[in-house]
Amino acid sequence: MKPPIDFYFDFSSPYGYLLSEKIDALAAQYGRKVRWHPILLGIIFKATGSAPLTLQNAAKASYSLHDFSRSARFMGLPYRHPDNFPLPTQNAARAYYWLHGQDCALARQFAHAAYRALFVDNIDISAPEAVLEIAAKIGVDRRNLETALQSPEIKERLKDEVDNALKIGVFGSPHVIIDGEAFFGADRLPQIEHWLKSGGF
Amino acid sequence: MKPPIDFYFDFSSPYGYLLSEKIDALAAQYGRKVRWHPILLGIIFKATGSAPLTLQNAAKASYSLHDFSRSARFMGLPYRHPDNFPLPTQNAARAYYWLHGQDCALARQFAHAAYRALFVDNIDISAPEAVLEIAAKIGVDRRNLETALQSPEIKERLKDEVDNALKIGVFGSPHVIIDGEAFFGADRLPQIEHWLKSGGF
Repeated sequence: MKPPIDFYFDFSSPYGYLLSEKIDALAAQYGRKVRWHPILLGIIFKATGSAPLTLQNAAKASYSLHDFSRSARFMGLPYRHPDNFPLPTQNAARAYYWLHGQDCALARQFAHAAYRALFVDNIDISAPEAVLEIAAKIGVDRRNLETALQSPEIKERLKDEVDNALKIGVFGSPHVIIDGEAFFGADRLPQIEHWLKSGGF
Repeated sequence: MKPPIDFYFDFSSPYGYLLSEKIDALAAQYGRKVRWHPILLGIIFKATGSAPLTLQNAAKASYSLHDFSRSARFMGLPYRHPDNFPLPTQNAARAYYWLHGQDCALARQFAHAAYRALFVDNIDISAPEAVLEIAAKIGVDRRNLETALQSPEIKERLKDEVDNALKIGVFGSPHVIIDGEAFFGADRLPQIEHWLKSGGF
Protein backbone atom coordinates (compact mmCIF):
# COMPACT_ATOMS: atom_id res chain seq x y z
CA MET A 1 0.00 0.00 0.00
CA LYS A 2 1.47 3.31 -1.05
CA PRO A 3 1.39 6.17 1.51
CA PRO A 4 -1.59 8.52 1.36
CA ILE A 5 -1.57 11.96 -0.22
CA ASP A 6 -2.21 15.01 1.98
CA PHE A 7 -4.64 17.61 0.66
CA TYR A 8 -4.72 20.97 2.50
CA PHE A 9 -7.52 23.37 1.63
CA ASP A 10 -9.79 26.09 2.96
CA PHE A 11 -13.52 25.68 2.39
CA SER A 12 -13.53 29.26 1.02
CA SER A 13 -10.89 28.52 -1.65
CA PRO A 14 -12.24 28.37 -5.23
CA TYR A 15 -9.22 26.44 -6.51
CA GLY A 16 -9.50 24.18 -3.46
CA TYR A 17 -13.05 23.36 -4.52
CA LEU A 18 -11.89 22.60 -8.09
CA LEU A 19 -9.17 20.25 -6.89
CA SER A 20 -11.50 18.61 -4.34
CA GLU A 21 -13.61 17.35 -7.23
CA LYS A 22 -10.64 15.60 -8.86
CA ILE A 23 -8.06 14.55 -6.29
CA ASP A 24 -9.64 11.36 -4.87
CA ALA A 25 -10.37 9.78 -8.26
CA LEU A 26 -6.91 10.66 -9.57
CA ALA A 27 -5.19 9.27 -6.47
CA ALA A 28 -7.28 6.09 -6.67
CA GLN A 29 -6.03 5.48 -10.22
CA TYR A 30 -2.55 5.16 -8.74
CA GLY A 31 -3.53 3.13 -5.68
CA ARG A 32 -3.48 6.07 -3.27
CA LYS A 33 -5.86 7.38 -0.65
CA VAL A 34 -6.11 11.11 0.15
CA ARG A 35 -6.14 12.62 3.64
CA TRP A 36 -8.17 15.83 3.58
CA HIS A 37 -7.09 18.67 5.88
CA PRO A 38 -9.40 21.69 5.98
CA ILE A 39 -7.41 24.68 7.27
CA LEU A 40 -8.02 28.40 7.75
CA LEU A 41 -6.38 30.69 5.20
CA GLY A 42 -7.07 33.69 7.42
CA ILE A 43 -4.52 32.41 9.93
CA ILE A 44 -2.11 31.21 7.22
CA PHE A 45 -2.24 34.59 5.43
CA LYS A 46 -1.79 36.52 8.68
CA ALA A 47 1.27 34.42 9.57
CA THR A 48 2.82 34.72 6.09
CA GLY A 49 1.78 38.31 5.33
CA SER A 50 -0.42 37.35 2.39
CA ALA A 51 -4.04 38.02 1.36
CA PRO A 52 -6.85 36.47 -0.71
CA LEU A 53 -6.43 36.80 -4.51
CA THR A 54 -9.50 39.03 -4.74
CA LEU A 55 -8.16 41.47 -2.11
CA GLN A 56 -4.57 42.01 -3.34
CA ASN A 57 -5.04 44.50 -6.17
CA ALA A 58 -7.75 45.41 -8.66
CA ALA A 59 -6.09 43.78 -11.70
CA LYS A 60 -5.44 40.48 -9.95
CA ALA A 61 -8.92 40.50 -8.37
CA SER A 62 -10.60 41.00 -11.72
CA TYR A 63 -8.46 38.34 -13.41
CA SER A 64 -8.97 35.85 -10.57
CA LEU A 65 -12.76 36.19 -10.61
CA HIS A 66 -12.68 35.49 -14.34
CA ASP A 67 -10.21 32.63 -13.97
CA PHE A 68 -12.17 30.82 -11.23
CA SER A 69 -15.09 30.31 -13.63
CA ARG A 70 -12.94 29.64 -16.69
CA SER A 71 -10.80 27.08 -14.84
CA ALA A 72 -13.99 25.37 -13.66
CA ARG A 73 -15.27 25.16 -17.25
CA PHE A 74 -11.87 23.88 -18.38
CA MET A 75 -12.08 21.15 -15.71
CA GLY A 76 -15.71 20.34 -16.55
CA LEU A 77 -17.07 21.56 -13.21
CA PRO A 78 -19.95 23.89 -12.29
CA TYR A 79 -18.98 27.19 -10.64
CA ARG A 80 -20.93 30.17 -9.39
CA HIS A 81 -18.87 32.76 -7.55
CA PRO A 82 -20.39 33.28 -4.07
CA ASP A 83 -21.92 36.64 -3.22
CA ASN A 84 -20.24 36.48 0.19
CA PHE A 85 -16.52 36.01 -0.55
CA PRO A 86 -14.10 35.47 1.07
CA LEU A 87 -15.83 34.13 4.16
CA PRO A 88 -14.87 32.45 7.47
CA THR A 89 -15.00 28.66 7.36
CA GLN A 90 -14.06 27.47 10.84
CA ASN A 91 -17.49 25.91 11.36
CA ALA A 92 -17.27 23.85 8.18
CA ALA A 93 -13.71 22.78 9.03
CA ARG A 94 -14.66 21.81 12.61
CA ALA A 95 -17.65 19.86 11.33
CA TYR A 96 -15.33 17.98 8.97
CA TYR A 97 -12.93 16.94 11.71
CA TRP A 98 -15.71 15.88 14.07
CA LEU A 99 -17.45 13.85 11.37
CA HIS A 100 -14.14 12.29 10.40
CA GLY A 101 -13.82 10.96 13.93
CA GLN A 102 -17.22 9.25 13.54
CA ASP A 103 -17.27 8.15 9.90
CA CYS A 104 -14.57 8.94 7.31
CA ALA A 105 -16.88 8.47 4.32
CA LEU A 106 -19.53 10.73 5.79
CA ALA A 107 -16.89 13.42 6.45
CA ARG A 108 -15.87 13.26 2.78
CA GLN A 109 -19.50 13.48 1.72
CA PHE A 110 -19.94 16.52 3.97
CA ALA A 111 -16.85 18.22 2.53
CA HIS A 112 -18.17 17.86 -1.02
CA ALA A 113 -21.61 19.06 0.06
CA ALA A 114 -20.15 22.14 1.81
CA TYR A 115 -17.93 23.04 -1.15
CA ARG A 116 -20.79 22.61 -3.65
CA ALA A 117 -23.19 24.57 -1.43
CA LEU A 118 -20.75 27.49 -1.51
CA PHE A 119 -19.40 27.36 -5.08
CA VAL A 120 -22.37 25.98 -6.98
CA ASP A 121 -25.46 26.99 -5.00
CA ASN A 122 -24.18 30.31 -3.62
CA ILE A 123 -25.00 29.34 -0.03
CA ASP A 124 -23.11 31.27 2.66
CA ILE A 125 -21.56 28.45 4.70
CA SER A 126 -19.96 30.63 7.36
CA ALA A 127 -22.58 30.39 10.14
CA PRO A 128 -23.01 27.24 12.28
CA GLU A 129 -26.67 27.03 11.14
CA ALA A 130 -25.63 26.74 7.48
CA VAL A 131 -23.16 23.98 8.30
CA LEU A 132 -25.77 22.13 10.39
CA GLU A 133 -28.24 22.36 7.53
CA ILE A 134 -25.76 20.93 5.01
CA ALA A 135 -24.85 18.13 7.41
CA ALA A 136 -28.48 17.33 8.24
CA LYS A 137 -29.20 16.80 4.54
CA ILE A 138 -26.69 13.94 4.46
CA GLY A 139 -28.07 12.37 7.60
CA VAL A 140 -25.94 13.90 10.36
CA ASP A 141 -27.68 14.42 13.71
CA ARG A 142 -28.04 18.16 14.02
CA ARG A 143 -27.86 18.36 17.81
CA ASN A 144 -24.74 16.19 18.11
CA LEU A 145 -22.94 18.26 15.50
CA GLU A 146 -24.10 21.52 17.09
CA THR A 147 -22.55 20.42 20.39
CA ALA A 148 -19.39 19.21 18.63
CA LEU A 149 -18.85 22.57 16.90
CA GLN A 150 -18.49 24.13 20.35
CA SER A 151 -16.31 21.42 21.87
CA PRO A 152 -12.80 22.37 22.95
CA GLU A 153 -11.42 19.14 21.41
CA ILE A 154 -12.68 20.00 17.93
CA LYS A 155 -11.54 23.62 18.19
CA GLU A 156 -8.14 22.36 19.30
CA ARG A 157 -8.01 19.83 16.46
CA LEU A 158 -8.55 22.54 13.84
CA LYS A 159 -5.98 24.78 15.53
CA ASP A 160 -3.45 21.93 15.51
CA GLU A 161 -4.09 21.27 11.82
CA VAL A 162 -3.52 24.93 10.92
CA ASP A 163 -0.39 25.12 13.10
CA ASN A 164 0.94 21.97 11.48
CA ALA A 165 0.15 23.26 7.99
CA LEU A 166 2.15 26.41 8.71
CA LYS A 167 4.99 24.32 10.13
CA ILE A 168 5.28 22.21 6.97
CA GLY A 169 5.22 25.24 4.65
CA VAL A 170 1.61 25.48 3.51
CA PHE A 171 1.05 29.09 2.37
CA GLY A 172 -2.22 28.83 0.39
CA SER A 173 -4.99 26.54 -0.85
CA PRO A 174 -5.04 23.97 -2.35
CA HIS A 175 -1.71 22.53 -1.25
CA VAL A 176 -1.05 18.84 -1.93
CA ILE A 177 1.83 16.78 -0.56
CA ILE A 178 2.84 13.47 -2.14
CA ASP A 179 5.80 11.62 -0.63
CA GLY A 180 7.15 14.91 0.75
CA GLU A 181 6.70 16.74 -2.58
CA ALA A 182 4.49 19.86 -2.41
CA PHE A 183 2.16 21.02 -5.19
CA PHE A 184 0.36 24.35 -4.84
CA GLY A 185 -2.73 25.21 -6.85
CA ALA A 186 -5.41 23.35 -8.81
CA ASP A 187 -3.32 24.08 -11.92
CA ARG A 188 -0.66 21.65 -10.65
CA LEU A 189 -3.05 18.76 -11.36
CA PRO A 190 -1.13 17.66 -14.49
CA GLN A 191 2.14 17.64 -12.48
CA ILE A 192 0.44 15.73 -9.65
CA GLU A 193 -0.72 13.12 -12.15
CA HIS A 194 2.73 12.89 -13.72
CA TRP A 195 4.29 12.51 -10.27
CA LEU A 196 1.86 9.74 -9.29
CA LYS A 197 2.44 7.96 -12.58
CA SER A 198 6.23 8.19 -12.63
CA GLY A 199 7.04 8.27 -8.92
CA GLY A 200 8.89 11.58 -9.29
CA PHE A 201 10.40 13.60 -12.12
CA MET B 1 -5.35 35.73 -40.93
CA LYS B 2 -6.30 35.47 -37.26
CA PRO B 3 -5.21 38.32 -34.97
CA PRO B 4 -1.88 37.91 -33.16
CA ILE B 5 -1.49 36.84 -29.54
CA ASP B 6 0.12 39.29 -27.09
CA PHE B 7 2.76 37.90 -24.73
CA TYR B 8 3.82 40.14 -21.83
CA PHE B 9 6.86 39.06 -19.81
CA ASP B 10 9.82 40.29 -17.79
CA PHE B 11 13.24 38.91 -18.73
CA SER B 12 13.74 38.10 -15.01
CA SER B 13 10.58 35.94 -14.82
CA PRO B 14 11.25 32.17 -14.55
CA TYR B 15 7.73 31.25 -15.69
CA GLY B 16 8.07 33.85 -18.45
CA TYR B 17 11.15 31.98 -19.68
CA LEU B 18 9.27 28.66 -19.58
CA LEU B 19 6.37 30.04 -21.61
CA SER B 20 8.72 31.80 -24.05
CA GLU B 21 10.02 28.39 -25.12
CA LYS B 22 6.51 27.16 -26.03
CA ILE B 23 4.26 30.04 -27.06
CA ASP B 24 5.40 30.63 -30.67
CA ALA B 25 5.20 26.98 -31.73
CA LEU B 26 1.82 26.53 -30.06
CA ALA B 27 0.41 29.69 -31.66
CA ALA B 28 1.75 28.63 -35.07
CA GLN B 29 -0.18 25.34 -34.84
CA TYR B 30 -3.35 27.44 -34.81
CA GLY B 31 -2.29 29.93 -37.48
CA ARG B 32 -1.35 32.68 -35.04
CA LYS B 33 1.65 34.95 -34.63
CA VAL B 34 2.78 36.19 -31.21
CA ARG B 35 3.70 39.77 -30.36
CA TRP B 36 6.30 39.77 -27.58
CA HIS B 37 6.22 42.60 -25.05
CA PRO B 38 9.05 42.68 -22.53
CA ILE B 39 7.96 44.74 -19.52
CA LEU B 40 9.37 45.60 -16.10
CA LEU B 41 7.80 43.79 -13.15
CA GLY B 42 9.46 46.22 -10.74
CA ILE B 43 7.17 48.99 -12.00
CA ILE B 44 4.14 46.67 -12.26
CA PHE B 45 4.64 45.41 -8.70
CA LYS B 46 5.14 48.92 -7.35
CA ALA B 47 1.92 50.09 -9.01
CA THR B 48 -0.12 47.06 -7.84
CA GLY B 49 1.48 46.64 -4.39
CA SER B 50 2.91 43.21 -5.19
CA ALA B 51 6.36 41.57 -4.98
CA PRO B 52 8.41 38.79 -6.61
CA LEU B 53 7.44 35.23 -5.54
CA THR B 54 10.79 34.72 -3.86
CA LEU B 55 10.43 37.87 -1.72
CA GLN B 56 6.87 37.48 -0.40
CA ASN B 57 7.33 35.00 2.46
CA ALA B 58 9.71 32.16 3.34
CA ALA B 59 7.28 29.32 2.58
CA LYS B 60 6.29 30.69 -0.83
CA ALA B 61 9.91 31.51 -1.68
CA SER B 62 11.07 28.00 -0.88
CA TYR B 63 8.19 26.42 -2.81
CA SER B 64 8.67 28.71 -5.80
CA LEU B 65 12.38 27.97 -6.11
CA HIS B 66 11.54 24.26 -6.12
CA ASP B 67 8.64 24.71 -8.54
CA PHE B 68 10.64 26.73 -11.11
CA SER B 69 12.94 23.73 -11.67
CA ARG B 70 10.22 21.11 -11.42
CA SER B 71 7.95 22.97 -13.86
CA ALA B 72 10.89 23.23 -16.27
CA ARG B 73 11.46 19.47 -16.06
CA PHE B 74 7.73 18.89 -16.54
CA MET B 75 7.85 21.03 -19.69
CA GLY B 76 11.05 19.38 -20.94
CA LEU B 77 13.17 22.52 -20.57
CA PRO B 78 16.56 23.15 -18.98
CA TYR B 79 16.58 25.41 -15.89
CA ARG B 80 19.27 26.65 -13.54
CA HIS B 81 18.11 29.22 -11.02
CA PRO B 82 20.27 32.35 -11.38
CA ASP B 83 22.57 33.36 -8.53
CA ASN B 84 21.49 36.97 -9.00
CA PHE B 85 17.70 36.93 -8.71
CA PRO B 86 15.52 38.90 -9.11
CA LEU B 87 17.44 41.37 -11.23
CA PRO B 88 16.74 44.53 -13.28
CA THR B 89 16.10 43.87 -16.96
CA GLN B 90 15.54 47.25 -18.55
CA ASN B 91 18.64 46.85 -20.74
CA ALA B 92 17.47 43.52 -22.16
CA ALA B 93 13.97 44.92 -22.74
CA ARG B 94 15.30 48.05 -24.46
CA ALA B 95 17.60 45.94 -26.64
CA TYR B 96 14.58 43.85 -27.65
CA TYR B 97 12.52 46.86 -28.73
CA TRP B 98 15.39 48.44 -30.66
CA LEU B 99 16.20 45.18 -32.42
CA HIS B 100 12.53 44.69 -33.23
CA GLY B 101 12.56 47.98 -35.11
CA GLN B 102 15.44 46.67 -37.24
CA ASP B 103 14.65 42.99 -37.68
CA CYS B 104 11.76 41.11 -36.00
CA ALA B 105 13.38 37.69 -36.34
CA LEU B 106 16.64 38.92 -34.83
CA ALA B 107 14.75 40.45 -31.91
CA ARG B 108 13.10 37.09 -31.22
CA GLN B 109 16.47 35.36 -31.46
CA PHE B 110 17.88 37.88 -28.97
CA ALA B 111 14.99 37.33 -26.54
CA HIS B 112 15.58 33.58 -26.50
CA ALA B 113 19.32 34.11 -26.10
CA ALA B 114 18.83 36.52 -23.18
CA TYR B 115 16.35 34.23 -21.40
CA ARG B 116 18.60 31.18 -21.86
CA ALA B 117 21.69 33.11 -20.75
CA LEU B 118 19.91 33.94 -17.48
CA PHE B 119 17.96 30.76 -16.77
CA VAL B 120 20.24 28.11 -18.27
CA ASP B 121 23.76 29.55 -18.16
CA ASN B 122 23.41 31.62 -14.96
CA ILE B 123 24.61 34.79 -16.69
CA ASP B 124 23.65 38.04 -14.96
CA ILE B 125 21.95 39.94 -17.81
CA SER B 126 21.28 43.16 -15.88
CA ALA B 127 24.24 45.28 -17.06
CA PRO B 128 24.41 46.83 -20.56
CA GLU B 129 27.69 44.96 -21.18
CA ALA B 130 26.00 41.59 -20.64
CA VAL B 131 23.21 42.49 -23.05
CA LEU B 132 25.72 43.73 -25.65
CA GLU B 133 27.66 40.50 -25.33
CA ILE B 134 24.56 38.34 -25.87
CA ALA B 135 23.52 40.45 -28.86
CA ALA B 136 27.02 40.42 -30.38
CA LYS B 137 26.97 36.61 -30.37
CA ILE B 138 23.97 36.62 -32.70
CA GLY B 139 25.53 39.19 -35.03
CA VAL B 140 24.24 42.50 -33.66
CA ASP B 141 26.58 45.48 -34.06
CA ARG B 142 27.74 46.22 -30.52
CA ARG B 143 28.25 49.98 -30.98
CA ASN B 144 24.87 50.58 -32.60
CA LEU B 145 23.09 48.70 -29.83
CA GLU B 146 25.12 50.49 -27.13
CA THR B 147 23.97 53.83 -28.53
CA ALA B 148 20.39 52.58 -28.85
CA LEU B 149 20.24 51.49 -25.19
CA GLN B 150 20.80 55.14 -24.23
CA SER B 151 18.42 56.66 -26.76
CA PRO B 152 15.38 58.55 -25.43
CA GLU B 153 13.17 56.87 -28.07
CA ILE B 154 13.95 53.37 -26.82
CA LYS B 155 13.60 54.35 -23.17
CA GLU B 156 10.25 55.93 -24.03
CA ARG B 157 9.15 52.83 -25.96
CA LEU B 158 9.76 50.59 -22.93
CA LYS B 159 8.03 53.06 -20.64
CA ASP B 160 5.01 53.12 -22.97
CA GLU B 161 4.86 49.32 -23.07
CA VAL B 162 4.89 49.09 -19.27
CA ASP B 163 2.28 51.87 -18.95
CA ASN B 164 0.08 50.11 -21.47
CA ALA B 165 0.50 46.75 -19.75
CA LEU B 166 -0.68 48.31 -16.48
CA LYS B 167 -3.59 49.95 -18.29
CA ILE B 168 -4.83 46.65 -19.72
CA GLY B 169 -4.57 44.82 -16.38
CA VAL B 170 -1.21 43.03 -16.55
CA PHE B 171 -0.16 42.30 -12.94
CA GLY B 172 2.60 39.71 -13.41
CA SER B 173 4.62 37.62 -15.88
CA PRO B 174 3.91 35.79 -18.11
CA HIS B 175 0.58 37.31 -19.14
CA VAL B 176 -0.91 36.27 -22.48
CA ILE B 177 -3.86 37.90 -24.24
CA ILE B 178 -5.77 36.08 -26.99
CA ASP B 179 -8.74 37.89 -28.55
CA GLY B 180 -9.14 39.97 -25.37
CA GLU B 181 -8.93 36.90 -23.08
CA ALA B 182 -6.13 37.06 -20.46
CA PHE B 183 -4.13 34.06 -19.24
CA PHE B 184 -1.68 34.51 -16.38
CA GLY B 185 1.16 32.07 -15.72
CA ALA B 186 3.03 29.36 -17.62
CA ASP B 187 0.63 26.87 -16.02
CA ARG B 188 -2.20 28.29 -18.14
CA LEU B 189 -0.60 26.72 -21.24
CA PRO B 190 -3.22 23.91 -21.43
CA GLN B 191 -6.03 26.49 -21.23
CA ILE B 192 -4.28 28.64 -23.88
CA GLU B 193 -4.10 25.62 -26.19
CA HIS B 194 -7.75 24.74 -25.53
CA TRP B 195 -8.76 28.35 -26.25
CA LEU B 196 -6.78 28.44 -29.52
CA LYS B 197 -8.27 25.11 -30.57
CA SER B 198 -11.89 25.85 -29.71
CA GLY B 199 -12.02 29.64 -30.12
CA GLY B 200 -13.16 30.10 -26.53
CA PHE B 201 -14.73 27.97 -23.82
